[in-house]
Amino acid sequence: MDRREGVEHTSSSSLKGVLAAALTPMDGDLSPDHEAFVAHCHRLLDAGCHGLGVFGTTGEANSLSVQARLSALEALVEGGVQANSLLPGTGSCVLEDTVRLSRAALEADSAGVLVLPPFYYKNVSDEGVFRFFADLIERIGDRRLRVYLYHFPQMTGVGFGLPLIGRLLEVYPGVVAGMKDSAGDWERIETVCREFPDFSVFAGTERYLLDTLQHGGAGCISATVNVTSRLARRVYDSHAAGQDDDARKLQEHLTVLRTEIEAFPLIPALKRIMARLTEAEGWYNLRPPLVGLEDDQAAKLLARVPLGELL
Amino acid sequence: MDRREGVEHTSSSSLKGVLAAALTPMDGDLSPDHEAFVAHCHRLLDAGCHGLGVFGTTGEANSLSVQARLSALEALVEGGVQANSLLPGTGSCVLEDTVRLSRAALEADSAGVLVLPPFYYKNVSDEGVFRFFADLIERIGDRRLRVYLYHFPQMTGVGFGLPLIGRLLEVYPGVVAGMKDSAGDWERIETVCREFPDFSVFAGTERYLLDTLQHGGAGCISATVNVTSRLARRVYDSHAAGQDDDARKLQEHLTVLRTEIEAFPLIPALKRIMARLTEAEGWYNLRPPLVGLEDDQAAKLLARVPLGELL
Repeated sequence: MDRREGVEHTSSSSLKGVLAAALTPMDGDLSPDHEAFVAHCHRLLDAGCHGLGVFGTTGEANSLSVQARLSALEALVEGGVQANSLLPGTGSCVLEDTVRLSRAALEADSAGVLVLPPFYYKNVSDEGVFRFFADLIERIGDRRLRVYLYHFPQMTGVGFGLPLIGRLLEVYPGVVAGMKDSAGDWERIETVCREFPDFSVFAGTERYLLDTLQHGGAGCISATVNVTSRLARRVYDSHAAGQDDDARKLQEHLTVLRTEIEAFPLIPALKRIMARLTEAEGWYNLRPPLVGLEDDQAAKLLARVPLGELL
Repeated sequence: MDRREGVEHTSSSSLKGVLAAALTPMDGDLSPDHEAFVAHCHRLLDAGCHGLGVFGTTGEANSLSVQARLSALEALVEGGVQANSLLPGTGSCVLEDTVRLSRAALEADSAGVLVLPPFYYKNVSDEGVFRFFADLIERIGDRRLRVYLYHFPQMTGVGFGLPLIGRLLEVYPGVVAGMKDSAGDWERIETVCREFPDFSVFAGTERYLLDTLQHGGAGCISATVNVTSRLARRVYDSHAAGQDDDARKLQEHLTVLRTEIEAFPLIPALKRIMARLTEAEGWYNLRPPLVGLEDDQAAKLLARVPLGELL
């Protein structure tokens, strides 16, 4: 291995901490509202997020065209959002689209790309998913690429089992850099942290933030961090300062917040909270098949969450 | 209702009979091989197919970019494949992409469009799926549009229950023209035929071809019809001639053929049979996450199916 490769290995762990899976504000015709999106990303970074998982499930990115995703990424960078704080989702069912989106993210100097497995076909083999990622990495052909696997079997029906992760890490060390694990199964996160110590594991919920950090994981990338970022950051900082008793108390409070919000359909609930916090009605817009909360649901949500503590 | 509308209502039932869910031959870089695709479509129509469900699950269309789908459709029309025999799949997770693909299919004079529900998000509401279809139909804004709902919950995780079908038919009569039901549940097909008599129901497998026709359905759109079209057509013709005893015997034989083939991964198996029948190695190409059959599986398949009876 040459020296450059060594440096790259180090850089693969540079992304860590508290990341919001950023919401995408939409305008009236359901296109991303670039101005509101830039403002939201700045707001999240100012509130303590180490980085932003843009264009993920929470960002409704799989409901957006390739061109809309490219334009919105460009708008973020032009809007002064630090590119190396961004982990854009570039997954799709189409290899060429994922290549195009990932190349754009790489050229924008993003911290990496978060890539779903192709999610139309079900009961596919590990070999088929491996080939998708191998083709992606080889078509891009740039050793600066950092691929984070996006494990969310409840949504995709296609998962990254341990043998597949192991094979990808063996064939593409350094390039395959980490994973967002949204399966909601703590034991699995713990196992992946233990089995693959150089792999940056992010829990898909801040519920497991402290546990993940204590087991050598990288942090969390979470939908609810769109509104819990300040508190989540305090958990991280307390742990980093070696004050795990404080961190545990903060984590308990953070978990309560998460639990309150996830009692509602998550993305509509978060957009509704943002509408209230920012007094901007554009947050009511959701792309089908997602729909907004009914008014009575929204009233219940807004009564239950401590709005003053949020964001 | 004006006279034109009446004519349109009649035309919504013009698509019927035996349709192959056409395979898409791919070239070495995994792009659709237009020449081979045109040849395959002509071959299927010559072998007795009434029409072709191109760009469906079997056609690996959700693994193709929008541009690749548009170019391949153009190639078919330029290659002399009768546009009104085509039912292109135009579904995707992205409303604008589905609009663009559907508009192109309409402008090409296809018989209709076969549309998946947006399939990334799971546990979505009927209201959300309804809005996707309502937005699609209204953005296209052309009463010649014929939408066939593509029900395949095993693949999409999102289904068309009876209340949703009823609502779509009520709001968009004539435009919402029919359904391909790939759930593999005969009782459901029978129920939909009974509840919605003016709705063109296609079974997703030729296993139910005769049953579907006997219950007032439109026919079948099936992957295995890529190689069973001659026999499937004989079932249809016997039924149409009022000779249901003959039709039943032919159906039993057709069902045996289908059963033999579906013991293997379906799309790879069909491509392997086509490679043998046409002696063209391009049929070995599959887009990830699909992979070809292992050689020993392929040998078993080719030994079990009566190659001389196929296509």
